[in-house]
Amino acid sequence: MAKFEIATCAISGAVGTFANVAPEVEEYVAAQMGLAVEPVSTQVIPRDRHAAYFAALAVVASSVERLAVEIRHLQRTEVLEAEEFFDVGQKGSSAMPHKRNPILTENLTGLARLVRSAVTPAMENVALWHERDISHSSVERGICPDATVHLDFALRRLANVVDRLLIYPENMQKNLDRLGGLVHSQRVLLGLTQKGLSREASYAAVQRNAMKVWRGEGNFLDFLKADPEITLSDAELEQLFDLGYHFKNVDRIFARVFGEQP
Amino acid sequence: MAKFEIATCAISGAVGTFANVAPEVEEYVAAQMGLAVEPVSTQVIPRDRHAAYFAALAVVASSVERLAVEIRHLQRTEVLEAEEFFDVGQKGSSAMPHKRNPILTENLTGLARLVRSAVTPAMENVALWHERDISHSSVERGICPDATVHLDFALRRLANVVDRLLIYPENMQKNLDRLGGLVHSQRVLLGLTQKGLSREASYAAVQRNAMKVWRGEGNFLDFLKADPEITLSDAELEQLFDLGYHFKNVDRIFARVFGEQP
Amino acid sequence: MAKFEIATCAISGAVGTFANVAPEVEEYVAAQMGLAVEPVSTQVIPRDRHAAYFAALAVVASSVERLAVEIRHLQRTEVLEAEEFFDVGQKGSSAMPHKRNPILTENLTGLARLVRSAVTPAMENVALWHERDISHSSVERGICPDATVHLDFALRRLANVVDRLLIYPENMQKNLDRLGGLVHSQRVLLGLTQKGLSREASYAAVQRNAMKVWRGEGNFLDFLKADPEITLSDAELEQLFDLGYHFKNVDRIFARVFGEQP
Amino acid sequence: MAKFEIATCAISGAVGTFANVAPEVEEYVAAQMGLAVEPVSTQVIPRDRHAAYFAALAVVASSVERLAVEIRHLQRTEVLEAEEFFDVGQKGSSAMPHKRNPILTENLTGLARLVRSAVTPAMENVALWHERDISHSSVERGICPDATVHLDFALRRLANVVDRLLIYPENMQKNLDRLGGLVHSQRVLLGLTQKGLSREASYAAVQRNAMKVWRGEGNFLDFLKADPEITLSDAELEQLFDLGYHFKNVDRIFARVFGEQP
Repeated sequence: MAKFEIATCAISGAVGTFANVAPEVEEYVAAQMGLAVEPVSTQVIPRDRHAAYFAALAVVASSVERLAVEIRHLQRTEVLEAEEFFDVGQKGSSAMPHKRNPILTENLTGLARLVRSAVTPAMENVALWHERDISHSSVERGICPDATVHLDFALRRLANVVDRLLIYPENMQKNLDRLGGLVHSQRVLLGLTQKGLSREASYAAVQRNAMKVWRGEGNFLDFLKADPEITLSDAELEQLFDLGYHFKNVDRIFARVFGEQP
Repeated sequence: MAKFEIATCAISGAVGTFANVAPEVEEYVAAQMGLAVEPVSTQVIPRDRHAAYFAALAVVASSVERLAVEIRHLQRTEVLEAEEFFDVGQKGSSAMPHKRNPILTENLTGLARLVRSAVTPAMENVALWHERDISHSSVERGICPDATVHLDFALRRLANVVDRLLIYPENMQKNLDRLGGLVHSQRVLLGLTQKGLSREASYAAVQRNAMKVWRGEGNFLDFLKADPEITLSDAELEQLFDLGYHFKNVDRIFARVFGEQP
Repeated sequence: MAKFEIATCAISGAVGTFANVAPEVEEYVAAQMGLAVEPVSTQVIPRDRHAAYFAALAVVASSVERLAVEIRHLQRTEVLEAEEFFDVGQKGSSAMPHKRNPILTENLTGLARLVRSAVTPAMENVALWHERDISHSSVERGICPDATVHLDFALRRLANVVDRLLIYPENMQKNLDRLGGLVHSQRVLLGLTQKGLSREASYAAVQRNAMKVWRGEGNFLDFLKADPEITLSDAELEQLFDLGYHFKNVDRIFARVFGEQP
Repeated sequence: MAKFEIATCAISGAVGTFANVAPEVEEYVAAQMGLAVEPVSTQVIPRDRHAAYFAALAVVASSVERLAVEIRHLQRTEVLEAEEFFDVGQKGSSAMPHKRNPILTENLTGLARLVRSAVTPAMENVALWHERDISHSSVERGICPDATVHLDFALRRLANVVDRLLIYPENMQKNLDRLGGLVHSQRVLLGLTQKGLSREASYAAVQRNAMKVWRGEGNFLDFLKADPEITLSDAELEQLFDLGYHFKNVDRIFARVFGEQP
């Protein structure tokens, strides 16, 4: 989309009136180069196209940052559900030999800031004076190579990080268990309301038991089973604690995006 | 385009897995509301869509500023080729009764700055933590109404300014004449090279005569006619000074944009 | 500092030349109002002062965000070393009764984005045309109340969060222990080099043992004691694992900032 | 000010607790290097200092742009009160030999955009995770050299432009005269009110005559003399048209800034 916006061609002369060069020349050259004709040019192609292009790069960079931040969270010592690939013999933190920092995704976070920084100058370039002034030139000499090279590098680095990502399913399970089954609180809440309890009362009952787990006093399922106000049988509660419930549409989501058959 | 990007719908539950609500529900609601289904949602619609939307608003605002700056230039006292409508009886500058400032287009310049200021926070909103955090909320409560209302106001104001713009063709002619015909220097340059003079020599000859005009010593056409190195006849020179040459493709440019027949 | 920069007064007339009002009047009014005289005004006070003021607000807002992000990390379920105050009876997540999100600090993160968004428009306001144009006015009507009110609110909210912050020292200890003593790796590294081992060899020896802990194979101190290449006695190693070592200058750091006696 | 903010030194160890290096070492090194001690460091010096530094550079760059925009306006063909130095034999516009564009100040306008673009990433760098993450590093590798080199270049270029600026006092006078004496409208307005006429009536009387000048019908002073409602004598009016009135405090303004005696 951004590529389409920017891929235009203007050969309309110093004030955009085709005084010395006919529109046919512009059309011919554009066609030969696979570009669209710029319908309203001055001496230059209007800079709103460039602004839209740099904004598109910055949105992509922000999405790179989003994935990078997710991985940085998953890699923190207390979570450790995933980790950037770490070579045997690779050095970690210089001061702390035991540390394995997510340096690649931290770097991607920084690169996103750099790519975003091109957007405002590109937009300030739009309001050139009259046919054009030369103020946009120094800006574009800076941001054109910087933003494109940084984003290209960031996308390759991100692809590489994802390809080689170390995944720790047993830690995922451990983190879920650490909460004493609390992650199922929403299902219990819905189960109670379907049994006829008001949403208010259901919420209070679930929260009361959840808070005991939060304070480290025991297991969520046990508390619920023992609570006389919880109008669900033990079997019903156990069914509500089945993680498989959450996975039933996963293949479908992937198919929706990647077009594969579930 | 921006509207299409943002017009999506997500009803996929608190972690985007359709655990409690089937994808069919999402599809049905989206269709009823004329929205596309969000193919990869978490608890929320990813904020890259919002970022692209605010970037699109900001590009439009920058284009508004471009037209506003053009009008501000045309209205300055020494140029005065166009002017914002000024009502009989309207007050101008409070201190200087004679002044008629381009206050509407100056205001549009400021509004463009405000609309642009929404882009970076919208992009910083993309990297929410995990399924989502609530940090984007306060940002969107600010920028959603501000950026859209400001741009809507700016577009209406700009349309109004253009509709009622006072145009002074005689001042345009006067400004062209003030240059002693200098605006035709490019045609003379091309004319000389077509006569076989080198580009270097042509440029030097034209510039030499132009600088005399610049210093206020007389008229460009007269200087050229009197210069023995200028290998163009008086009739040829006069033809090169014909303004109509520049207007020959104007209808065609309008037709190209607005689809009218020339 | 920012306040000092902006607290100036100009009464120098429509083009800053004191044509109709003498400089003495400006000086008198400034003194009465506790302001400095603006040494070089045009019709208005130059907007570099305002730009510096909004930049100062944005730096403060970014520092607020820094503390907010720290607390958000400490509150995540797997870490839980600190937590925003949560009232008995308060509702958490609407869908998930067990969740207690750091909504105040997430909000502060968003507010920081809003306050920062005032900086670029304030800087774009500096280059007004000639004595002044009115383009800065709409910008300042937006950003003056928004940036100051948001930052004031953010500072009060942050102070409140810190005042009422729930601290969990036992979780801090648990998180330190979870690493099997790995946090002391730097001291062991330094201890080995002080015993005469090369830094290269020390790093390799410490890392080799640390990685076993990382893989969940056991306790760091035990591994070190059992490693024949570790040239430190058991007593020396135990001393290196003393957390008190890190606290010895804490009072001094506080005194340095707050001027209290240690 | 910005320099003072950033000139600090931290040697407080990997978590800022002076565990391995005593505060005295930090104090000694800081003193030797002419730096202040960073009172609250983590592993790194807090990035709010860097953010304030880049904001200061950007305010200066915006002030450079302000002067550049003023010169660009003064150089436009219809105004031509000042002009960037233009060497004999220098080429102007490549297509239009007669044109002498203010290319240096247009370039300065672009450079200001580039220097400003460092501010937001520098502020996004403030909220590093815990003791620090490495995300600020790639940002600073980009913006530190770029922003400082660009601003240094811009300041030198601006100084050079001002040093060699061509000034055209006769064009200034011509532009003032072009308005038929309209620039004195404020003094006439004040003169009338001092004679006892209401401000409303004075404004209307002045504007009525000014608008005739605006429409090119004649000279402002002549119209005023001929207007029976203007209660000022010809001699009084002529005195109000004395330009010297506006220059009386010029030396004083310079002295106030540069400390010279008038």
